[in-house]
Amino acid sequence: MNKIELTFILAPVSAVLGLIFASIFHSQMKKFSEGEPEMRKIASYVKEGAKAYLTQQYKVAAVIFIIFAALFVYLGYVLKIQNKYIPYAFIIGGFFSALSGYLGMSTATSASARTANAAKTSLNSALKIAFRSGAVMGLTVVGLGLLYVSGAFIVLHYILKLSVEEAATTMLGFGVGASFMALFARVGGGIFTKGADVGADLVGKIEAGIPEDDPRNPAVIADNVGDNVGDVAGMGADLFESYVGSIFASVALAITASLGLAGVVLPMVISALGMISSIIGIYAVRSTEEASQKQLLKALGRGINLSAVLITITTIAYVLIFIPEDKGLIGSILAGLLAGIIIGKSTEYYTSADFKPAQKIAESSQTGPATVILHGLSVGMISTVIPVIAVGIGMILSFTFAGGFSNIGRGLYGIAVSAVGMLSTLGITLSTDAYGPIADNAGGNAEMTKQKPYVRERTDALDALGNTTAATGKGFAIGSAALTTMALIAGYIEEIKSALRLLGKNMMQIGENIKNITTLNVDEIIKFFNGHLLNVKVVIGIFIGAMVVFAFCAMTLRAVSRAAYSIVFEVRRQFKEIKGLLKGKAKADYASCVRISTAQAQKSMIIPSLMAIVVPVLTGFVIGIPGVIGLLLGSLATGFAVAIMMANSGAAWDNAKKYIEKGNLGGKGSQQHKASVVGDTVGDAFKDTTGPSLNILLKLMSMVSVIFCGFTLKYGDIIEKLLRK
Amino acid sequence: MNKIELTFILAPVSAVLGLIFASIFHSQMKKFSEGEPEMRKIASYVKEGAKAYLTQQYKVAAVIFIIFAALFVYLGYVLKIQNKYIPYAFIIGGFFSALSGYLGMSTATSASARTANAAKTSLNSALKIAFRSGAVMGLTVVGLGLLYVSGAFIVLHYILKLSVEEAATTMLGFGVGASFMALFARVGGGIFTKGADVGADLVGKIEAGIPEDDPRNPAVIADNVGDNVGDVAGMGADLFESYVGSIFASVALAITASLGLAGVVLPMVISALGMISSIIGIYAVRSTEEASQKQLLKALGRGINLSAVLITITTIAYVLIFIPEDKGLIGSILAGLLAGIIIGKSTEYYTSADFKPAQKIAESSQTGPATVILHGLSVGMISTVIPVIAVGIGMILSFTFAGGFSNIGRGLYGIAVSAVGMLSTLGITLSTDAYGPIADNAGGNAEMTKQKPYVRERTDALDALGNTTAATGKGFAIGSAALTTMALIAGYIEEIKSALRLLGKNMMQIGENIKNITTLNVDEIIKFFNGHLLNVKVVIGIFIGAMVVFAFCAMTLRAVSRAAYSIVFEVRRQFKEIKGLLKGKAKADYASCVRISTAQAQKSMIIPSLMAIVVPVLTGFVIGIPGVIGLLLGSLATGFAVAIMMANSGAAWDNAKKYIEKGNLGGKGSQQHKASVVGDTVGDAFKDTTGPSLNILLKLMSMVSVIFCGFTLKYGDIIEKLLRK
Repeated sequence: MNKIELTFILAPVSAVLGLIFASIFHSQMKKFSEGEPEMRKIASYVKEGAKAYLTQQYKVAAVIFIIFAALFVYLGYVLKIQNKYIPYAFIIGGFFSALSGYLGMSTATSASARTANAAKTSLNSALKIAFRSGAVMGLTVVGLGLLYVSGAFIVLHYILKLSVEEAATTMLGFGVGASFMALFARVGGGIFTKGADVGADLVGKIEAGIPEDDPRNPAVIADNVGDNVGDVAGMGADLFESYVGSIFASVALAITASLGLAGVVLPMVISALGMISSIIGIYAVRSTEEASQKQLLKALGRGINLSAVLITITTIAYVLIFIPEDKGLIGSILAGLLAGIIIGKSTEYYTSADFKPAQKIAESSQTGPATVILHGLSVGMISTVIPVIAVGIGMILSFTFAGGFSNIGRGLYGIAVSAVGMLSTLGITLSTDAYGPIADNAGGNAEMTKQKPYVRERTDALDALGNTTAATGKGFAIGSAALTTMALIAGYIEEIKSALRLLGKNMMQIGENIKNITTLNVDEIIKFFNGHLLNVKVVIGIFIGAMVVFAFCAMTLRAVSRAAYSIVFEVRRQFKEIKGLLKGKAKADYASCVRISTAQAQKSMIIPSLMAIVVPVLTGFVIGIPGVIGLLLGSLATGFAVAIMMANSGAAWDNAKKYIEKGNLGGKGSQQHKASVVGDTVGDAFKDTTGPSLNILLKLMSMVSVIFCGFTLKYGDIIEKLLRK
Repeated sequence: MNKIELTFILAPVSAVLGLIFASIFHSQMKKFSEGEPEMRKIASYVKEGAKAYLTQQYKVAAVIFIIFAALFVYLGYVLKIQNKYIPYAFIIGGFFSALSGYLGMSTATSASARTANAAKTSLNSALKIAFRSGAVMGLTVVGLGLLYVSGAFIVLHYILKLSVEEAATTMLGFGVGASFMALFARVGGGIFTKGADVGADLVGKIEAGIPEDDPRNPAVIADNVGDNVGDVAGMGADLFESYVGSIFASVALAITASLGLAGVVLPMVISALGMISSIIGIYAVRSTEEASQKQLLKALGRGINLSAVLITITTIAYVLIFIPEDKGLIGSILAGLLAGIIIGKSTEYYTSADFKPAQKIAESSQTGPATVILHGLSVGMISTVIPVIAVGIGMILSFTFAGGFSNIGRGLYGIAVSAVGMLSTLGITLSTDAYGPIADNAGGNAEMTKQKPYVRERTDALDALGNTTAATGKGFAIGSAALTTMALIAGYIEEIKSALRLLGKNMMQIGENIKNITTLNVDEIIKFFNGHLLNVKVVIGIFIGAMVVFAFCAMTLRAVSRAAYSIVFEVRRQFKEIKGLLKGKAKADYASCVRISTAQAQKSMIIPSLMAIVVPVLTGFVIGIPGVIGLLLGSLATGFAVAIMMANSGAAWDNAKKYIEKGNLGGKGSQQHKASVVGDTVGDAFKDTTGPSLNILLKLMSMVSVIFCGFTLKYGDIIEKLLRK
């Protein structure tokens, strides 16, 4: 064992450390009281609903996982055109991703009543519970992720004795299961939560004129369940996927760059250092007992900044000490971090009610909902400019610093590692992201149990705090998704090489040149497949890529509107049929709304999620490798822009509405407010269902292309085979 | 002169023939009475407003044209890195495009009162005037286009004595002026028309509760002016641009394919044959005096089908007789036609109120405007699937039939020619497109002059008829835009070669290999620039391409909402300040609304239009040729999908609203109707401003890249120059 191998031990160790701290925070949280019986009861409804939903979702996912695992066994063991570790990696990845989501949800549902109860005492004690619970989720996701990644390397390299090269290439396959499960969680959870939310608002707030989270609204529990299964469990699975995806991609590219063990270990060590920095940062978040909202925000910012500084220093130190010959990589990592920060700031500008864009959307409510929609869409669209430029510059710089001009492989590795750098402090940024929904649910609990107004005000303050800190987190998530996908596409080309080695001479496209294929570089391989840039198949692939993004958006947006539609009819039915419900004299049938949302979400999540696998496979089957490369590039470009647009216009609409609710432009109940609610409702589906799912879709399609590469090479491109005749 | 050269004469001859028929139809139309004095007065208001607007627009455009022409003179004559015919071509192209729009507008404004007056007699006589006036526009646009194209070839080849090769390459530069002017017309006209329309509807229909086109509404004349400057003049300039663009692209690629004169002449001959087929088709549109709406639709269909059959037969005959060695091109042309028809049918399905998608949007109005928006967006997004597949298959087939597998250049030429085939019957399809706005304006005139209800009903029937036939026309326009842009991107690579020849040895990127550059093929050239597919610059270019589309959409959508906002405030002001206006006792100040819309449109059209030139030049300057190629591919993929989405969701919202107005789901005045109006308003900006402008943007960016190729080669890619140091 050389000294670099020794540093690798940091990864599993800090993973376990993270999980230990998560369980400490968890038991700390559990010690607080869940409050009066009514509070417990509401919390238990939400908890049961969320569990029931997730159980159902995992059942559906399990069936689909088994089918695909069987397919992978067939491809790997019978046809021998695929890496044979993929079936296991697929199942295990799915399991870990589901576990991340489940644990997050379980913590969040335990924390909400406790947070509401603590809010009776003070804002600060409520913050403490909510933030520590968020930290449980943050550290759990990151801990499981790092455990999964380092465990995979230990098993492959040290137990199964694969060479570093083989282990690294195999690891890419480990991401697919995680991403696939995450896609189900985001899409299904997103449809559930936004269907219930939109449905509840449409009849409750707009038609019946009762406040949000009013216990008379039959969809109110479903709405709260949704926050947990969508915003918490969905986000957990999603970020687990982003986190491990960025590491796996770097590990795979380390081999392209001929960086060997040092290159494989680096992303894991960065993540380990990030974990430790996050834990320290989390401990730094404290404030005096009677702190103002501003002070609380400052405290959170302090924690995040401290972690960022620590990870920067330790990474620089690590690189200089252990791999001084690759000190350019420091530049790559910093370029990635910088791009993430710029995206976060730009997100804040375009979405926060403190700045012009959201205020202008609010002003446009004076001319009705149509102009609110037009204005919001245009804000979302223009907000793509800065992130694209930031990612572009980040890519070029991390490519350059890593030495890409003399060695393209190293440049691409630099890009992949910059994404790892961006996500390294996920432990703490996710903590600040995750406590938002907890505070939101605590507010719901307070409302439903008819607490004094100041309790709700305090939970609302926490929720608003969460919105601001979440912007930076989102910037990092989106930026890293673009960089990782780019790296994965590069990985795809690499995989073509090794698949060719695996396939041997039997391929019709290869002919006599097979002996030399392993010595070709990326350019030559592309050329080998007649895949020059203007290849019609590449262009068609690019078209299909853009189209897939749109089809995915169409299906998920429609699913939300369909789910909302069912909820609206159910709530209307209950208002009509259950006598005394609106007067508060009879109890609503909460369970039926949960059931309806569950059924709608399950039904609607399958086809869009399957697209991530079916489309690249089918594209490869019909128009071959160049088509798949086009598909990946086209979907990345369009999907990145659409994902940012959806996230930002959604958040801007939300904040424009809140800006009006604060008493501007006529305030609550005015025509302007009603117009802004229309924007907010459309934005809910944008920002919480479709937008975040897109990031997963993009990455998953690239990973699927990689693992189906052998299949595509052997059986693909039928159109050329047909037309050449 | 060989026999192929003789057939070329068909082009200028049929161009003149088209213009003669246009003037015959024009004087036929002029013979009809403009009706009672009130009708004339309203018509003259609209005519004056439209002229005033266009004059203003042309003034602004002229200034910008002069600036760019001076730049082109500098690049061509001083720096000698650009073709020196471009400044003239640029100015002349802009002039012809403007002329097309102006003549169309002038015909339409003359026809509206006459159509309204004829509608007093019968539906059929109104149809006759409207359709013949539409035909004036159709034949004028196509006639001027063919005259421009064939004139350019005559001047370059026969007068200036350039070789066929030089003439063909130079001709591509002729498209830029036309496209640039068309972009101004579409963007400026689109902002004017939709700003006025949305503004008028928001205060008139929704706030004041007065019907559309009510003379009490101060924005009503501006609304009608808008139809003429946006839907008529904008469309005229736009289709002029599409038409000449597809021909120029084919001509330029004929040289790549080494097809020589035969390849250069073919697209012009196809267009000439299409012109003659269109004239015959137009004459075939007649119906009995008391025909029903269905019979009228049939009559129109008969005309279009007859033209399609004629062009097919004559093209096949031409190819078999004159270039039998290239009979594969027949397959290419038919593949293009077929793709266009499929796109048209799919457009009809997704937008017509006779089918499920629009009906479902109407149903979603039961749960309010937010679900109408979500549903409409999802319909628009899913409607991209069939067109993408159709264009993809069309591309592959026209590539294959043209012999692309053995010679890529021929394959690309096949794609370009298939776009020419698609647009060959533009003479008649544009006629059926253009009479819609004429009927719409006639309806406005009838309303404002308080005609008996049946007059308005008849013009409405004509308008509805126009909507249905327009779907097919739009399919062809969108499909051909994708194919032409693809061909232009291919042309870009060609231009790189000739620019290199022009530049000689002085380029830093070229170094010693300059002597061999002219012998390289496309692949090798790309490789030469280190431009392999995964080149980071290509990927960044693709990102920028997607972003440009979004930024363009953001700016234009916002401009509409801003223009509408100003109109709303002006109308509210007039309602408040002009006493008796709402009671019909005082006259509205129509001119002030026209002035406001004009100012807003002029102000807002400049930046998005300039983007089409600035972005490719700047991208090339910063990240060089590979970046520009990425930019073009990324914007094509995203822009094509967004353009279809915008066109189709806009039309579907419109028809969903009309479906409700017919008495479904509560009918006019219900909550459902109000919700559907929100969708329609958003859709107006989508389908009439942003969507159609996108097609021009895409083509223009590729042409600009081509003409700035020399500049990019010599001064571009500064980032590499900086970072390599």
